[in-house]
Amino acid sequence: MAEEMRELRDRLIEKVQKIRDAKVPILVLVEGWAAAGKGSLIKELISELDPRFYNVVSPAVIPESQMRYPFLYPYATAIPENGKVIFLDSGWMESCVRKITRHEITRDEYRRRVRQVNEFERQLRDAGYIVLKLFLNIDRKEQKARLAELMENPDTEWRVTEEDLWQQREYKRFQAGYEQFMEETREAAPWHVLDGDKRKTAVAAALKLLNEAMEKTLEEGKYNGDPFEEEFPLKPMPKLAEVDLSPSIGDEEYKKELKKLQGRLSELHNIIYRKKIPVVICYEGWDAAGKGGNIRRVAYPLDPRGFDVMPIASPEPHELARQYLWRFWTRLPRTGHITIFDRTWYGRVMVERLEGFCTEKDWKRAYNEINEFERQLTDWGAVVLKFWIHIDQDTQLARFTDRQNTPEKQWKITEEDWRNREKWPQYETAVNEMLQKTSTENAPWFIIESNDKKYARIKALKIIVKALEKACEEQIGREMEG
Amino acid sequence: MAEEMRELRDRLIEKVQKIRDAKVPILVLVEGWAAAGKGSLIKELISELDPRFYNVVSPAVIPESQMRYPFLYPYATAIPENGKVIFLDSGWMESCVRKITRHEITRDEYRRRVRQVNEFERQLRDAGYIVLKLFLNIDRKEQKARLAELMENPDTEWRVTEEDLWQQREYKRFQAGYEQFMEETREAAPWHVLDGDKRKTAVAAALKLLNEAMEKTLEEGKYNGDPFEEEFPLKPMPKLAEVDLSPSIGDEEYKKELKKLQGRLSELHNIIYRKKIPVVICYEGWDAAGKGGNIRRVAYPLDPRGFDVMPIASPEPHELARQYLWRFWTRLPRTGHITIFDRTWYGRVMVERLEGFCTEKDWKRAYNEINEFERQLTDWGAVVLKFWIHIDQDTQLARFTDRQNTPEKQWKITEEDWRNREKWPQYETAVNEMLQKTSTENAPWFIIESNDKKYARIKALKIIVKALEKACEEQIGREMEG
Repeated sequence: MAEEMRELRDRLIEKVQKIRDAKVPILVLVEGWAAAGKGSLIKELISELDPRFYNVVSPAVIPESQMRYPFLYPYATAIPENGKVIFLDSGWMESCVRKITRHEITRDEYRRRVRQVNEFERQLRDAGYIVLKLFLNIDRKEQKARLAELMENPDTEWRVTEEDLWQQREYKRFQAGYEQFMEETREAAPWHVLDGDKRKTAVAAALKLLNEAMEKTLEEGKYNGDPFEEEFPLKPMPKLAEVDLSPSIGDEEYKKELKKLQGRLSELHNIIYRKKIPVVICYEGWDAAGKGGNIRRVAYPLDPRGFDVMPIASPEPHELARQYLWRFWTRLPRTGHITIFDRTWYGRVMVERLEGFCTEKDWKRAYNEINEFERQLTDWGAVVLKFWIHIDQDTQLARFTDRQNTPEKQWKITEEDWRNREKWPQYETAVNEMLQKTSTENAPWFIIESNDKKYARIKALKIIVKALEKACEEQIGREMEG
Repeated sequence: MAEEMRELRDRLIEKVQKIRDAKVPILVLVEGWAAAGKGSLIKELISELDPRFYNVVSPAVIPESQMRYPFLYPYATAIPENGKVIFLDSGWMESCVRKITRHEITRDEYRRRVRQVNEFERQLRDAGYIVLKLFLNIDRKEQKARLAELMENPDTEWRVTEEDLWQQREYKRFQAGYEQFMEETREAAPWHVLDGDKRKTAVAAALKLLNEAMEKTLEEGKYNGDPFEEEFPLKPMPKLAEVDLSPSIGDEEYKKELKKLQGRLSELHNIIYRKKIPVVICYEGWDAAGKGGNIRRVAYPLDPRGFDVMPIASPEPHELARQYLWRFWTRLPRTGHITIFDRTWYGRVMVERLEGFCTEKDWKRAYNEINEFERQLTDWGAVVLKFWIHIDQDTQLARFTDRQNTPEKQWKITEEDWRNREKWPQYETAVNEMLQKTSTENAPWFIIESNDKKYARIKALKIIVKALEKACEEQIGREMEG
């Protein structure tokens, strides 16, 4: 045994270095019964690893009532960067099974979570992550003995929670719950059940599985998943070329409407905040289409304590080193808050596609991944609105020229803008494809005609006001029922 | 008035662009009475700014009992990056004055916080930050009327808290508290009191102050503070050349001691966790001195849920763009947790000094800044231990050569290591200066003789065990008293 362990550990140390060079990220999820020894197992796995290459994460146990983010948030924000290993001490399994068993979530919510887990695991796998899922199993008697032992020692007594004792009493129901969950979540990454009774055997088995997973990836190369399309209910969208860009608005009417809509939005922001509805507003559009000015008119009536504008520039190294949605997960609003994204995750299917910053498989997969991501947001209760701020090529040229010729506007125009302009036809193709494939019923696109910027601002404000009114109405309705 | 406002806003827009090009970060702190209109003031200031260049932060109001970080944490982690503006909607003033007035902190703690605030503001100023502090003042009658108005409207009623009403009743005591705090915290950045009764005048005054601050900096250039030395109680340290590196330990004794110390550390970790004592362990040392192996022996007995190893590599762009301690503030342990830093903030006075990655003023200022930072940690209740893992040049050469000749160790040795080795004398000077100037009584350095790695591991473990035993004892003592 000791010799086998030595050999397994040596293999692990050697492999981790190769994995680092191959820039493969690894997520090891350790789930299992209370007192099954998850912490000790992780301790054994990391004991000889170089601390620069791994991290142990124990998602803080936050009461559901205080968790002001989507269900997957603690896990999606904790994913490792390329070449590093994350050990997760309990995660999405515990969060699903414990809650359904204790009647803290509805059956419907449980089913949504299972679906989200499958989406999450597949997205990680397709982005080249190794996802290793371990379940540490002990029987009812063994658990009872271990809990008793922990409680006898004043230094470890605090580790045993009310919920652990409840699990011991309801062992059979939990068992059924764990089994069902494992059955339902094996699509992208299989489960491995380890015998927690025999600590050394469990460690050896985990080391072996980890070694094998790494060896397989090193042999076959980093995985890059094939595009995959689930059917989402889509809103039909026109081609950009078909959009009539002539709508405009008079100065008088603009001022009147602007005042009215901003006043209403300010009221709605108060209700949104009280009702804890999260709001995500996405801005994409041609350079010089008027995104900045449009965003300012929306932001003006909002209480600065309750919203953020997130400008999205090119990813930084630590962002590039993780699955591409990570930098958006970490920028989500809390419930009751509004985040306005000035450019978004759709960079994947526009600039990254056209400039070759990702593989063809990457951007082709992204339509579906993004639809899933946005559904996870609306499942959580978020209002998700997406604006394409649209102008024609002549208008862009006029605005570029104006910027070039006006000293205080020159900083707004760069060589890159002119280069992008040359690629207008390629961008138009990409944008059309994006609008067709990602305008879901739950997170629709709106084309905002912006040859007249004032018209565009009023249109965007109207859409936001209407969507927030609807969301508040629905929330108040739910409160009356419940 | 309208014309003056227009002119002030235009100046602001123009200045913000120059500030961005000059890479100057700006922190605008807006404090003031409840219902004085802090939110509206910020709204007016940002109304025409490009959202890419500012952010509004409202440090979440966390009950003291749940705040598991040092007092300055919410502010120190929120500082802007170069060329950006942060508007802080209430901050360290409110947190000090409200708490002392409500008897939620002791007079001693209040005094410590005032000192920390002065340190924090000076450190930001010296790093080139513009720190603009505004206090929005309204009289008692006006506050009463505004609170009443807010409470009459069902959509704004929730904004008025019990604490706001309490402030209205205790207006005079708060007034004295605010005045005293302003008197005590004007060293690095003056306070500006604005008349909140006249909303437009207040906005104009704030715009003017912000414009003037930016203009001054643009004219004089980004500030780079002079070194400043406060007297800290220091522990005398030997010069490295005087350290006897011959101590060693036999294999038998090593195994026995290691087992005993790791067992004890494991027990202590449980107590630390329960008593909510935060622990910061810093590792610095020569390349190939054995930091990694030493850290592994310390980490092995710890519960992975309660500690992190933070490897510190060269700063990333978003880290370089902020005051240098920011990337350590964001990596601090929560109370009850242990963070082991594999290299630390001392990079400033070693590699950054020697390689010219910062100015001479920057690294000369750093000794004092670091002493202040570490005192803020120990004020908070943290145990702070710092290890210099020490070897001689011959031992390093032997280990480098071994790494070069052993295939599975080659990744550990780079060209840079050889280059650094050539600068041994310069590093030795820098390390000696660092040890002399920063081995404070509250956060001392320990030189760990590591020509014999096993001896070094036992020595580090002994120091940690002793320090944690002392901290637990003291905490238990305080609990018995209180």
